[in-house]
Amino acid sequence: MPILNKDMSVCISLAGRPSNLGTRFHNFLYDELGLNFLYKAFTTDDIEGAVRAIRALGIRGCSVSMPFKEAVIPLVDVMEESAAAIESVNTIVNDDGVLTASNTDYEAIAELIAEHALDPRQRVLVRGSGGMAKAVVAAFRGAGFDDLTVVARNEAAGRAIADKYGYRWVADDPEPDFDLIVNVTPLGMHGADAAALAFTLPFIRRATTVFDVVAFPAETPLIAEARRAGKRVITGAEVIALQAARQFERYTGVRLTRDQVDRAAAFSRAG
Amino acid sequence: MPILNKDMSVCISLAGRPSNLGTRFHNFLYDELGLNFLYKAFTTDDIEGAVRAIRALGIRGCSVSMPFKEAVIPLVDVMEESAAAIESVNTIVNDDGVLTASNTDYEAIAELIAEHALDPRQRVLVRGSGGMAKAVVAAFRGAGFDDLTVVARNEAAGRAIADKYGYRWVADDPEPDFDLIVNVTPLGMHGADAAALAFTLPFIRRATTVFDVVAFPAETPLIAEARRAGKRVITGAEVIALQAARQFERYTGVRLTRDQVDRAAAFSRAG
Repeated sequence: MPILNKDMSVCISLAGRPSNLGTRFHNFLYDELGLNFLYKAFTTDDIEGAVRAIRALGIRGCSVSMPFKEAVIPLVDVMEESAAAIESVNTIVNDDGVLTASNTDYEAIAELIAEHALDPRQRVLVRGSGGMAKAVVAAFRGAGFDDLTVVARNEAAGRAIADKYGYRWVADDPEPDFDLIVNVTPLGMHGADAAALAFTLPFIRRATTVFDVVAFPAETPLIAEARRAGKRVITGAEVIALQAARQFERYTGVRLTRDQVDRAAAFSRAG
Repeated sequence: MPILNKDMSVCISLAGRPSNLGTRFHNFLYDELGLNFLYKAFTTDDIEGAVRAIRALGIRGCSVSMPFKEAVIPLVDVMEESAAAIESVNTIVNDDGVLTASNTDYEAIAELIAEHALDPRQRVLVRGSGGMAKAVVAAFRGAGFDDLTVVARNEAAGRAIADKYGYRWVADDPEPDFDLIVNVTPLGMHGADAAALAFTLPFIRRATTVFDVVAFPAETPLIAEARRAGKRVITGAEVIALQAARQFERYTGVRLTRDQVDRAAAFSRAG
């Protein structure tokens, strides 16, 4: 790490329960690229005050996580399409006091769909109805997928997401007949739901691709089962690294290579 | 420097024109002592928002410099005597959302008066009438000095400070007949007034001790002349190091040795 100095540009994150990932990812690359930047995760019980802090302290960029992704919308000046379309912000960039919001989760998922060359004729099942599910469903729509089902207990949220993009909503598991299954719930996440398998085995066996947005751990029970069954997998670790890379680029103006992203992601997950 | 992580306690400074001193002083000692702390200087055009940021982001401590030392008074929860007595804050400590203000400039000057064993029967001349002059005059009063003259062009401010502590105010230089002369103006400071000698030679020759609160440079024309004349000198560098040490102790709970303060101060001035 460089010697800290007064002129460093500061980027922060705001999350209900901060992880160490962003702090390690961004600072690793600042160091490697010799950028006079500093990144630090924060939590807050005053999101309005925290966004005002971005302005008052001249903070360059801010990553926004649960549960603040919608609450910051009225507090910024400009909403980019990536955030406006899904009414969910995960990135704020401060240009001389003008706060522009975007959603690099959406961008990352769209990139992963393209990178893995997922076929838009495939049948997709998405489990979940939170902010991240919105980003996922919107990205599939943007990629031209026509046949997508949202499965979510929360009828209001599930129906709203499905309706918005012209998809189907169901409360309970349909027949296991999907090419692409996507988990956007906490099932399998480190914590209370760590042992939960987000889809039953018939869904996994039938699918060609299994996508789990859970990033901690990267190897969820779902991903582990999918690997065992020889399926193509896309992990939450890929999502989180890509979305962080796009934030990094917005904050610093420096475009990252895939190798840089991979090494920063590996470093970020190592501590 | 340690690898930055999400759990670091963050301390900041707020100044109209930040220097690099605090950032280097505090981070040097965090590193040496293995404390999981991070320090960064900021400026702001929204002092109310910046103090709200301390609360909203859970910032542990904040150094307050010109021109915010009085503006923060209505924004904190508790005023310690060191700040209340002179209506000037240079330190805010955040204990779980309760902001306590103090003034370690006052404490540092009081300590230097004691450390240099200045004799309270001596005649003192203080030039200046700003916030720092208040701290200086209050510290001399606290140390039992009875004979002190404030010389300041600004009649309202000069008279107010002198009156408050039962001292004399004069607009123009009196006869050069003082044991202790103290400069608390920008005369001799890096910038437009760098070449200015804060007291004429007769004052320097007559004095036994010359005290200059200007910290940049430490060797002002006044200090240089005083050394040449063989006088005891007290520099602004001593004040700024001691006051930073007292802030450090409030933020971290760690008591510093004189050697640690000296080395951190030397490091802080080297970059």
